[in-house]
Amino acid sequence: MEKLFVGVDIGGTNVASGLIDEEGNLLQRDKRPILAQVSQDASLRQIVNGIRMVAEKEGISANELGGVGIGSPGPLDPFQGVALSPVNLPTWGTVPLKKIVEEEFSVPVTVDNDANVVAVGERWKGAGRDVDNFLCATLGTGIGGGAICEGRLLHGFNGNAVEIGHITVDFNGPRCGSGNYGCLELYASASAIARRTSERMERERPKSLLTEAEQITSKTVFEAAQRGDKFALEMFEETGFFLGVGLVSAINLLNVEMVALTGGLANAGDLIFNPVRRTILERGFPGVKEKIRVIPTQLGEDAALLGAAKIAIDGGVFI
Amino acid sequence: MEKLFVGVDIGGTNVASGLIDEEGNLLQRDKRPILAQVSQDASLRQIVNGIRMVAEKEGISANELGGVGIGSPGPLDPFQGVALSPVNLPTWGTVPLKKIVEEEFSVPVTVDNDANVVAVGERWKGAGRDVDNFLCATLGTGIGGGAICEGRLLHGFNGNAVEIGHITVDFNGPRCGSGNYGCLELYASASAIARRTSERMERERPKSLLTEAEQITSKTVFEAAQRGDKFALEMFEETGFFLGVGLVSAINLLNVEMVALTGGLANAGDLIFNPVRRTILERGFPGVKEKIRVIPTQLGEDAALLGAAKIAIDGGVFI
Repeated sequence: MEKLFVGVDIGGTNVASGLIDEEGNLLQRDKRPILAQVSQDASLRQIVNGIRMVAEKEGISANELGGVGIGSPGPLDPFQGVALSPVNLPTWGTVPLKKIVEEEFSVPVTVDNDANVVAVGERWKGAGRDVDNFLCATLGTGIGGGAICEGRLLHGFNGNAVEIGHITVDFNGPRCGSGNYGCLELYASASAIARRTSERMERERPKSLLTEAEQITSKTVFEAAQRGDKFALEMFEETGFFLGVGLVSAINLLNVEMVALTGGLANAGDLIFNPVRRTILERGFPGVKEKIRVIPTQLGEDAALLGAAKIAIDGGVFI
Repeated sequence: MEKLFVGVDIGGTNVASGLIDEEGNLLQRDKRPILAQVSQDASLRQIVNGIRMVAEKEGISANELGGVGIGSPGPLDPFQGVALSPVNLPTWGTVPLKKIVEEEFSVPVTVDNDANVVAVGERWKGAGRDVDNFLCATLGTGIGGGAICEGRLLHGFNGNAVEIGHITVDFNGPRCGSGNYGCLELYASASAIARRTSERMERERPKSLLTEAEQITSKTVFEAAQRGDKFALEMFEETGFFLGVGLVSAINLLNVEMVALTGGLANAGDLIFNPVRRTILERGFPGVKEKIRVIPTQLGEDAALLGAAKIAIDGGVFI
C-alpha cells in the first residue's frame, strides 16, 4: 500500500498540517492555534494533535504514516531537527522537535527551516516545477529564502544557507538584528516599505493620499499605489529596485534561473515585479540576466505543507 | 593498471599541464607560452603539445590517459566545454575546447572555469581538505570564486555560479564591467587597492612613502605598508574591510565554513587577513561567524592543475 506522509507548517500564530501522498496530493488538512505564547508544552501538544487529526480524518493511525516533515521558524538545526530559540515562538527555547515527534508516533521525522520547505514545495508542485536552480524568497516582516541548487535543497555547513534577507546592499547602511549592516531586508521587506515610507513622509512631507492614513503599513502603501498615488508608487519602485539589487547578488552567486516571490509584498503584483525585473536586466550578467524568470509562487499556504512532506518522503535533509 | 590524468591550467600568458594519478600525485609538469596573442590555432597547439609532453615524459602516449581536465578563463560553458570569448585570450572567440582536445587524443575531456578548478584542487589536496562547504576566492585583477557546496562544485544553471567579485557592496557604487554597480571587485581586488590608493592620494595628499613611488600598484602599497607607512596600512585595512563585507554576504547565502584566499593580495598575509576576519566577526550571523575559518590557499599554482585533473577523474561537472 502507498505510504502517506504529514507535512507540518509551524507559524507564529497557527500550526497547519496536511496529509499528503507520494504524488503530492493533499488529502486532509488541519489548522489550529500554535499557543506558543501559552507554553512550550501547549504548543507541542497542538503540533502532535494536528498530525494525529489529519491521519485520523483519513481513517489511519499516525503510527502508520511513512513519516512526518516539519517546517519551523529559524534558527534551527535541520541536521538534528532542533529548534534554537525561534523569535516567533517565545516560550520555546531549544526544542528537540524531531526527537519529540518521533517518540510520539514512532515514525521518521524531518525538520527544516520554514523558508526552505516553501522552496521545496514550490519546486515540487508549484512555480519551480522541473527547475533545478531555483530561489524562493518570502517578503514578510523580514526576507527569508530557500534555494534548490542543481536539484538539491541547499543547507550549508550548519543549516544557515540562503539567508537572502541578510546580504548587504549598502555596506554603510543601518545595523540589522542579524549583526550585519545595510541588509536587504532593511530595504525590501514588507516592514521596510512601511518604515521607509513613514521616514520619507516625515522628511519630505510629500503630497500623498497616505497623509490621511491612520497608520502606514505595506497594505496602506499598496492601496494608495493602486489608486495611482504618485508617492506610494515611488515607494514600490524603490522597494523593487532594492529587491532587484539583492537578487542580482544572489543570482551572481547561485546562478539560479528562476526566482519565485511570496509573502505580503509579492501580492502587490506588477507594482513590485516590474521594478525587480527591470533592475535585474539593468544590473545582471550578460548571458545570464536575459534568462532569469522572476514570478510569483503558485501554491499559497500549501507550499509549506507540500515541501515539508516532500523532505520527509525523500528521507531528510541529506538526500 | 592505474589510470593517469592530465590537468591543464590555461592563463593569459602561459599554459601549464600536470600529469596526475588518481591519488593526486603530480608526476610530470610542463609550462609554455599560451600564444593567445598570436592566434587561436597557435594557442590550441600549445595546449595540445603540453598535454602530449607530460604524458611522454612519463613514457606513455596521451591516447592512454584516463582523461584530461582543463581549467580555462571565463566566460565558458562547462557543460559543453566551450570557451565563450574569454577577455584574456583575445584571439579565441568561441572555442569548443572539449571537442578539439577529445578529437586530438580520443580520451574524455572536461572543461571548467579557472576559479572553479582552483577551488576543487584546494579542496582535494590543500586548504579545504575534507571541508564540504568551502569557498575559494582569487584576488587578482578581478575577484574570482569557486565554491564546494555540500561536497559538490557549484555551477548553477549555466555555469556562472560564485561570481563573488560581482556581488554588490554598495548599490550606489560605480558601474562595473559586469553590468552591476558597486561590485566587490571594484573595492577589494589587487587592481582596486591600487586604484583606490591613487584616488585617495590625489584627493587627500596624505603623508606617505607612496608619494615617492613611480607607480602605485598593489605591490608598492604592500611594500609601504610593510615598512609601517600609516596611509598604506589604512588602505589594506579598508580593502580587508570591503572584502569582509562581501564575504559576509557570500557566507550568509552559501553557509560555507571555510574561505580560502589566493592571488596577489592574499600574499599580503595578516595585512589583509586580519581586517577580513575582524569584519566577519563584526557582521556575520551569531552561531555562524564564530565557526568561519579564513585562511590562505596551500597549493599555489598546483591547485589549478590538481583541480582540473580531479574534475576529469570524477567524470565531469555533473558528478
